[in-house]
Amino acid sequence: MMITAEIICVGSEILLGHIINTNASYLSQKLAAEGIDIFHQSVVGDNPRRLFEAIHTALRRSDIIITSGGLGPTIDDITISAIASSLSLPLVFDKKVLRSIESHFKKRRIKMPSDNKRQAYMPEGAIAILNPVGTAPASIIQYGNKSIIALPGPPRELIPIFEGSVIPYLRKGYGVRSTIFTRTIRTTGAPESAVNKKVRRFLEMKGDVTVGIYASLGEVDIKITAKAKNEKETLGKIRKVESRIVNVLGDIVYGFDDDTLESAAGKLLLKKKLTIAAAESCTGGFIANRITNISGSLKYFKMGVITYSNASKAAELGVPVDLIRKYGAVSGPVAIAMAKGMFAKAGTDFALAVTGIAGPTGGTKARPVGLVYIALADRRKTICVERRFLGSRADIKLQASTMALDMLRKALI
Amino acid sequence: MMITAEIICVGSEILLGHIINTNASYLSQKLAAEGIDIFHQSVVGDNPRRLFEAIHTALRRSDIIITSGGLGPTIDDITISAIASSLSLPLVFDKKVLRSIESHFKKRRIKMPSDNKRQAYMPEGAIAILNPVGTAPASIIQYGNKSIIALPGPPRELIPIFEGSVIPYLRKGYGVRSTIFTRTIRTTGAPESAVNKKVRRFLEMKGDVTVGIYASLGEVDIKITAKAKNEKETLGKIRKVESRIVNVLGDIVYGFDDDTLESAAGKLLLKKKLTIAAAESCTGGFIANRITNISGSLKYFKMGVITYSNASKAAELGVPVDLIRKYGAVSGPVAIAMAKGMFAKAGTDFALAVTGIAGPTGGTKARPVGLVYIALADRRKTICVERRFLGSRADIKLQASTMALDMLRKALI
Repeated sequence: MMITAEIICVGSEILLGHIINTNASYLSQKLAAEGIDIFHQSVVGDNPRRLFEAIHTALRRSDIIITSGGLGPTIDDITISAIASSLSLPLVFDKKVLRSIESHFKKRRIKMPSDNKRQAYMPEGAIAILNPVGTAPASIIQYGNKSIIALPGPPRELIPIFEGSVIPYLRKGYGVRSTIFTRTIRTTGAPESAVNKKVRRFLEMKGDVTVGIYASLGEVDIKITAKAKNEKETLGKIRKVESRIVNVLGDIVYGFDDDTLESAAGKLLLKKKLTIAAAESCTGGFIANRITNISGSLKYFKMGVITYSNASKAAELGVPVDLIRKYGAVSGPVAIAMAKGMFAKAGTDFALAVTGIAGPTGGTKARPVGLVYIALADRRKTICVERRFLGSRADIKLQASTMALDMLRKALI
Repeated sequence: MMITAEIICVGSEILLGHIINTNASYLSQKLAAEGIDIFHQSVVGDNPRRLFEAIHTALRRSDIIITSGGLGPTIDDITISAIASSLSLPLVFDKKVLRSIESHFKKRRIKMPSDNKRQAYMPEGAIAILNPVGTAPASIIQYGNKSIIALPGPPRELIPIFEGSVIPYLRKGYGVRSTIFTRTIRTTGAPESAVNKKVRRFLEMKGDVTVGIYASLGEVDIKITAKAKNEKETLGKIRKVESRIVNVLGDIVYGFDDDTLESAAGKLLLKKKLTIAAAESCTGGFIANRITNISGSLKYFKMGVITYSNASKAAELGVPVDLIRKYGAVSGPVAIAMAKGMFAKAGTDFALAVTGIAGPTGGTKARPVGLVYIALADRRKTICVERRFLGSRADIKLQASTMALDMLRKALI
């Protein structure tokens, strides 16, 4: 038996585009992992009639309806009354809920505004879920074999309630008939079309295991999604396909799921007890920032310099002024000299250096915006690559830092 | 007369929560600015029947229907055929569209896969909009006084088509009866509750001009939204409220709309012809990265160092080893010595320095995770502040860099 859920997010601020609807993707991901199929997500404003219609439509086609938002104390917060009128239920006052709201204010030594009393009214028969973070209580309303679950809008309130109360309720009330898991294989260093060609036969798989390809700037992810009766069986199905895909892709695979290029390179440095320093021009600290986003990076990242001016390239890294004059600050010889200078200064096992034109101004025909030189020095040698990246200033900084981190990673494997 | 639009995003990857639906908020914002009301956003998977139903429902209640996604070359891409069957229109082959798809491949010296021919079929009478970035053509289908507009899913394809072709079409076809504009006042340095108190009376405004407050980590935005007959009138209404709010908020206002703290500080440095260098420990290059995200920052950002190890703090910035031993690397005296060392070395007008514990490990009771010292040196003096930030490693790096950039900004005004 298939259980279907649908998500209705309530709030004019979403319809005006003022906030991005992250609740919908969060809830969808979590429901999918419980084996619950989601066929519809919708957004309506703070309008009683349209919300009533949305709930009405959802009741016709889905087993579980989850709303987010519209539970606040003001007159604009209409979710509870819209649910009550959709199900022709009266609103009843819940003393326990009021006490929990009062205690929320008491803890912060603030007098409860009288408006908040509105939040203690629930559709008759609703299960109230007290809010550990805010004032808005969540509620679950059973309607035959269907459930309407009303959650507060702010993610920091919605997430703990969903994980602490809603998931247990769904598991108990609907059982978990199947589980859906997704495994992400993360790659960099090959364009989407090349990756696509390599994994084409997997992309065409139908049935319990499906494979998708998702490209972002400088990276391509392969997602394997499997559905089976239980976690063990699901993961087993994923593993089999995963190892075949990894085999086909080779060393462009840098990690899985939540891995990042910086965490992958960091793990290798830690494992081999090696250290790194970075000298950056056009990336302006982005490489160091990515490396130091990893907890524990202090163990392998010793220092960085951002030599934005030519004077600082000479003073900090000993890049000969003549070299800059002869080849230009954006050139292979200067990138190599920067890497060697950083290596000598930092006393690390590796030194990365990047120089380039991030744009949008400063390009010429011979040296266009996006031209970047990346060098990596170690004890034995210094390698350097030239790349021409496309896109905005931020795009070019991102791609150059990704390429640099991948050079480091490849040197470590 | 009110024009209403509705957005249908197509894609099972959205329903599975694999990607966050940024198209919906982008389109909503742009449509609101044209004075077009959006009452519904919805998401359906790659399922012909459910997409057919969604289009059918939308046709009943909205004037303009915008779909995103499902225009690719594969059998899973069903948007065009669902639109055609909703309107009982046949699909016809468009030679011009095929030629444009072919030329896309030719430019990249790739043979067009035969699947892509599918993308040259359009509902009869549709206006094809060629895609300058990808292969999927967009299309506009007029149906009485209603329009269905099918856009590709990837934002980098959707945005140029929407701005280049769809907005002009909507302006011409529907006229702009009213305009909605939103002006954002950007602040940092005061918590949301303090800002809320100051602007409370504006938040209660009803009618053509409304004011909202939106907090993110370290920053609080005030959004003024106004609706009027034309742009001039709308902006006039906004200006009046804006100047009153700015007046109330004072120097915590650092900019408006797309301004960032780094662009605001950069503008001040440029205007006053002053320069800056940064010495970072716990922020790990984040401050330099933010400063250099601004095009033209080369003029005022001279250099940065990331002195992650104690040895590099001593070697690069001349921080006395005794000082580190006596007070600890995370201390006010060390932050001050780092700023003075950076100032002396870089020869800039200002030098920022940050040292702290970004966590999640490395904290003690006396020096908890989140403890950060930020110093700013200039010719005359060095100031230093201590802060205890909360949150993840990334949160702490972000808040520390925001605080540092705001110290620089305040020193410049």
